[in-house]
Amino acid sequence: MSYTPTEMTRIRRLPERAAYDRATVHAILDEGFLCTVAFAVDGRPYALPTSYARVGETIYLHGSSGSRIGLHPGAEVCVTVTLLDGLVLARSGFHHSMNYRSVMAFGPARAITDPDEKDAALDAIVEHIVPGRAAAVRKTTRRDIAATAVLALDLVEVSAKIRSGPVSDEPEDYGYPVWAGVLPLRLVPGTPEPDEGIEGAPPAHVADWARPAPAKEPA
Amino acid sequence: MSYTPTEMTRIRRLPERAAYDRATVHAILDEGFLCTVAFAVDGRPYALPTSYARVGETIYLHGSSGSRIGLHPGAEVCVTVTLLDGLVLARSGFHHSMNYRSVMAFGPARAITDPDEKDAALDAIVEHIVPGRAAAVRKTTRRDIAATAVLALDLVEVSAKIRSGPVSDEPEDYGYPVWAGVLPLRLVPGTPEPDEGIEGAPPAHVADWARPAPAKEPA
Repeated sequence: MSYTPTEMTRIRRLPERAAYDRATVHAILDEGFLCTVAFAVDGRPYALPTSYARVGETIYLHGSSGSRIGLHPGAEVCVTVTLLDGLVLARSGFHHSMNYRSVMAFGPARAITDPDEKDAALDAIVEHIVPGRAAAVRKTTRRDIAATAVLALDLVEVSAKIRSGPVSDEPEDYGYPVWAGVLPLRLVPGTPEPDEGIEGAPPAHVADWARPAPAKEPA
Repeated sequence: MSYTPTEMTRIRRLPERAAYDRATVHAILDEGFLCTVAFAVDGRPYALPTSYARVGETIYLHGSSGSRIGLHPGAEVCVTVTLLDGLVLARSGFHHSMNYRSVMAFGPARAITDPDEKDAALDAIVEHIVPGRAAAVRKTTRRDIAATAVLALDLVEVSAKIRSGPVSDEPEDYGYPVWAGVLPLRLVPGTPEPDEGIEGAPPAHVADWARPAPAKEPA
């Protein structure tokens, strides 16, 4: 089951790194939780970091009723998620690269106005970022919901791009006297910092926080 | 010395998190090395991850002559850099947040066509990501330069946004029985993975790779 490539999503540069299958796209979206949402403001490109969660074939984006994105519901957006896996240190500057997994999704962003759908979407975002957290916290109120904007983007026009594996150098460069290889990078949690007045050890959903394991590459 | 806020860069949502001074903006740009560059393709927003380096008041963006951005020199762009510092786990879902430092820079992207300027920009990008690396690798050739697109964005219309520090909950929620606090996050290197045929320990610029220390917050 794949997304159908379009003029926007067909990878032009290094098409061998492209993937359009849902399993690959979903795995990247589910490991990430911070995206960039790009849209036009007065005709100019504007790209904002925000949190999100995937629910089925929809991405819910966290906004705010006071922010520019909250003021532009229905606008065409591009949601970009990038997971950085490592620095690729080649023998030439030219072949330096990064190992990464990224997703780009295009389409009109729907503003979620139904309070129950908004409530569910906000819970999904909290739960996506910290699995186990949504049920533990004080329930969302109508006032909370009114103060938050949630946008939804359906996964229709979507592509993934992945670079993994070792250095790729020009044949004549393999003898060049410099260390070459990959420096893996990952996002790791530090020691939880309890808020004032909090006693006792953090719960497992904090102490053992981790992202899902990286997806397998497409064949 | 600050950037002058404009209609695009004036932070509307939580303006107390905004910063426009060069020192804060530069420190965020210098700690990051992966950005999202947003631009319009056939009138639709398109946001691509890429690497960059700041040189003075210019950001050089790594592109490719075959990619969409390589084909749109002179286009208006928005460059967004986001450094994620932690998850803010409040007592309500509503006050969940992230600690982050981000920069947004707007303007027309100049295509760098002069081979010497391109060469210097590419070296700057390698050196920015892995300090000490540019001098160690095989020198860039004219062929390498021709196959790469470099765009430059001058830092004129720029803002930073920063969230740091502890949870901020509603006064009535402080007694809610849930652990609350901050889970710090950072990007850390793993064990370097030498390429086939590479003998010996990695050099210090790989073994001791780290980003510059986080910038101090603006007063």
